Amino acid sequence: MAKVRGTFPLDAETIAIGTELLIGGRSDSNSLFLADELGQLGIAVRFKSVVGDERQDIVMAIHTAVKRAQVIIMTGGLGPTVDDCTREAVAQAAGRRLGRRKEALEGLTTRLAQWGRIPNTAQLRQAMIPSGATVLKNPVGSAPGFCLRWKKALIISLPGVPREMEEMMRQEVVPLLRAASESSGLSPRTPIVRQIFHTFGLAEADVDAKLQGLIPKGAPVDLGLLASPMGVLVSLTTKGNQSTQEKNRDLMQKLADDVRSRLSDWLFAEGRDTMEEVVGRELARQGLMVAIAESCTGGLIGHRLTQVAGSSAYLDRGAVCYSNRAKTEMLGVPADLIVKHGAVSQEVVASMAKGIRERANVSVGLSVTGIAGPGGGTATKPVGLVYIGLDDGTGQPIAQEFRFHGDRTVIKQRSSQAALNLLRRWLLDRASR
Amino acid sequence: MAKVRGTFPLDAETIAIGTELLIGGRSDSNSLFLADELGQLGIAVRFKSVVGDERQDIVMAIHTAVKRAQVIIMTGGLGPTVDDCTREAVAQAAGRRLGRRKEALEGLTTRLAQWGRIPNTAQLRQAMIPSGATVLKNPVGSAPGFCLRWKKALIISLPGVPREMEEMMRQEVVPLLRAASESSGLSPRTPIVRQIFHTFGLAEADVDAKLQGLIPKGAPVDLGLLASPMGVLVSLTTKGNQSTQEKNRDLMQKLADDVRSRLSDWLFAEGRDTMEEVVGRELARQGLMVAIAESCTGGLIGHRLTQVAGSSAYLDRGAVCYSNRAKTEMLGVPADLIVKHGAVSQEVVASMAKGIRERANVSVGLSVTGIAGPGGGTATKPVGLVYIGLDDGTGQPIAQEFRFHGDRTVIKQRSSQAALNLLRRWLLDRASR
Repeated sequence: MAKVRGTFPLDAETIAIGTELLIGGRSDSNSLFLADELGQLGIAVRFKSVVGDERQDIVMAIHTAVKRAQVIIMTGGLGPTVDDCTREAVAQAAGRRLGRRKEALEGLTTRLAQWGRIPNTAQLRQAMIPSGATVLKNPVGSAPGFCLRWKKALIISLPGVPREMEEMMRQEVVPLLRAASESSGLSPRTPIVRQIFHTFGLAEADVDAKLQGLIPKGAPVDLGLLASPMGVLVSLTTKGNQSTQEKNRDLMQKLADDVRSRLSDWLFAEGRDTMEEVVGRELARQGLMVAIAESCTGGLIGHRLTQVAGSSAYLDRGAVCYSNRAKTEMLGVPADLIVKHGAVSQEVVASMAKGIRERANVSVGLSVTGIAGPGGGTATKPVGLVYIGLDDGTGQPIAQEFRFHGDRTVIKQRSSQAALNLLRRWLLDRASR
Repeated sequence: MAKVRGTFPLDAETIAIGTELLIGGRSDSNSLFLADELGQLGIAVRFKSVVGDERQDIVMAIHTAVKRAQVIIMTGGLGPTVDDCTREAVAQAAGRRLGRRKEALEGLTTRLAQWGRIPNTAQLRQAMIPSGATVLKNPVGSAPGFCLRWKKALIISLPGVPREMEEMMRQEVVPLLRAASESSGLSPRTPIVRQIFHTFGLAEADVDAKLQGLIPKGAPVDLGLLASPMGVLVSLTTKGNQSTQEKNRDLMQKLADDVRSRLSDWLFAEGRDTMEEVVGRELARQGLMVAIAESCTGGLIGHRLTQVAGSSAYLDRGAVCYSNRAKTEMLGVPADLIVKHGAVSQEVVASMAKGIRERANVSVGLSVTGIAGPGGGTATKPVGLVYIGLDDGTGQPIAQEFRFHGDRTVIKQRSSQAALNLLRRWLLDRASR
């Protein structure tokens, strides 16, 4: 573990480097991870910057960051190509020289040797480290990182590849930040605690209304709401070092209980849990098998349930019945039922759920049919009309009507979430009987 | 359309506001849209900043941005809650007063009236606009935006909701930026042209090697690579105003042709096209119906094909056969074939493809079986071993073996991509016969 002297930092800024990142369009998992890891050390990410692969722009971003953050975590730009210029930018920004460092070269050579290669000229650039910086080992890939104290900030440079960045944070950076905290002689900072609640079935404004007055005036906790097609996420976050760890814990416990009771009917998961994990766990606990019949969701529900490792214990099969003929042949939905009520109807969704349950010979059948759009809607059956069915063989099938808004993707997402939520509620009802 | 005087800008910075955005973990579609729209005006996004809902932090971000960008697009923080403080931050940063603006109030009131509501005190805050700023109409939601010229920059503040932001960019901001360009008397800037190529089946290093020497020295074009489980994305981007539009077009055409010939076998789509759109279009063109049998992908292939509007024209059905019994009952895979070779085998995948094709009575059957992990792997059949099958009734079924790396999600993604790619190649072969 590398050692770095100095006072212990408070605020962090992340700088992600890469022209492709400026364009966006993809999920940024690095931010989530970094916010979590730093939060546990009591360090709050206050700013997040993204710059392209231009040395001058990276230099400018570093100069901005050192003015407002004490921990700067840079990700990306450490590869072997000419585009990768984070090393050069940090050296230039802090007025250091770049030199080939023995321990960086050794790590690089060892890693490549494991892959049966020897470093070429381009790869040797990866061993260039700014003078005065500490080399950070990369236990996964070839590019070493480094840590440089400059002005009042710790500048930490890591690869952008999530798996490499995450391992280096865990094995190198976190111990280094802890050591810096201890050697500074300051009392350890209170970890930033963040609790997350996932709701489905309420609009953001309604969640907001239900949570009015939740946080007592002056309490060191922030309340956050974030709406998506999968529901509204509620977060409680303690604010930095304003209170002791014990006081924070008590307050958070009280607030969390309050959130649970105010949102009980709509709360389906907490923390990193997902709907499919919650449903899967409950199916496994009750020893039940499910089978699914999907029309407008096209396989999304099966995909989601099988995202969970071990799902073969409770998912037997799924039928994606896109055509009417498939509904009849795969599920035994009577053709005249479809003619009479239409494929998108309460009658057909109930028949689908019964059909898949009986054919799979499982405890419960779940079904969805609807109009995802943009075409196919009529005045009486508009785009967004979705039926969800559940059959458990008790002769009391459930068939619910929903009217969702949004584009095709959103309607599919909401439909899959509503279907899994219906299954979840049925499982809870069954357990409480 | 609002009018703003001044010189025409060159570089842009986006500032996304919201504590939840600092945490990340979700896809940022706003960046992609803004980079595209601004690029068409010849404006390059050089920096992207994210700040929480803290007024002082937003002020700091604005002060940083005006030093390095001439167009600043802020998204978020315009809602009615106390957290929303973009209006206050812009006023404070630029030393303006906030006042309730008539045109903002009218727009707000009209919108809420359409929804059958009258503005409450919190919502009235949304009509507060910094002095000297131009109000930007919101044709979708209730929060108006605004545009303020300060120092050498245009500060544009828009809601963070993608649909509202996009419509306001199109209807208000783009015309405003065009007008600013014209009134400045400068020659219009050359649009930034960006061409994107999607490949599958080659590692990033191999794509890099195949594209060595593509860009002539000094040519005003950047080459970018971005790897994901769905393949490697290649981008060509012209650099700002260094050349004329005609010259750029000729050069890009030549380079694009070169990329196509160097990557031909692995190139599956260009621009915003996706694999499922390419496959769907080709199925429709050839008038073919497909049916799918999925094991380890759990419905993901069906989900992806049905993301495309109109997919009912070529997708008949899918069977998600998670259990061995389901493979036998739904597809007619002989139980002793599974016992003899295992569910993850060339023999079973071929039988699955044949089974779904025959039962659906369609032109082509596509199948996947594999070990997505983390459990279930053995020494001879490790996690990541995946078979993909295709049967077209000619008696020459395809059954390919793949060995993918990554976690469960990645293996599912790669498997679905490899399966759709196999179908794509079969369709192209068939068309060329």
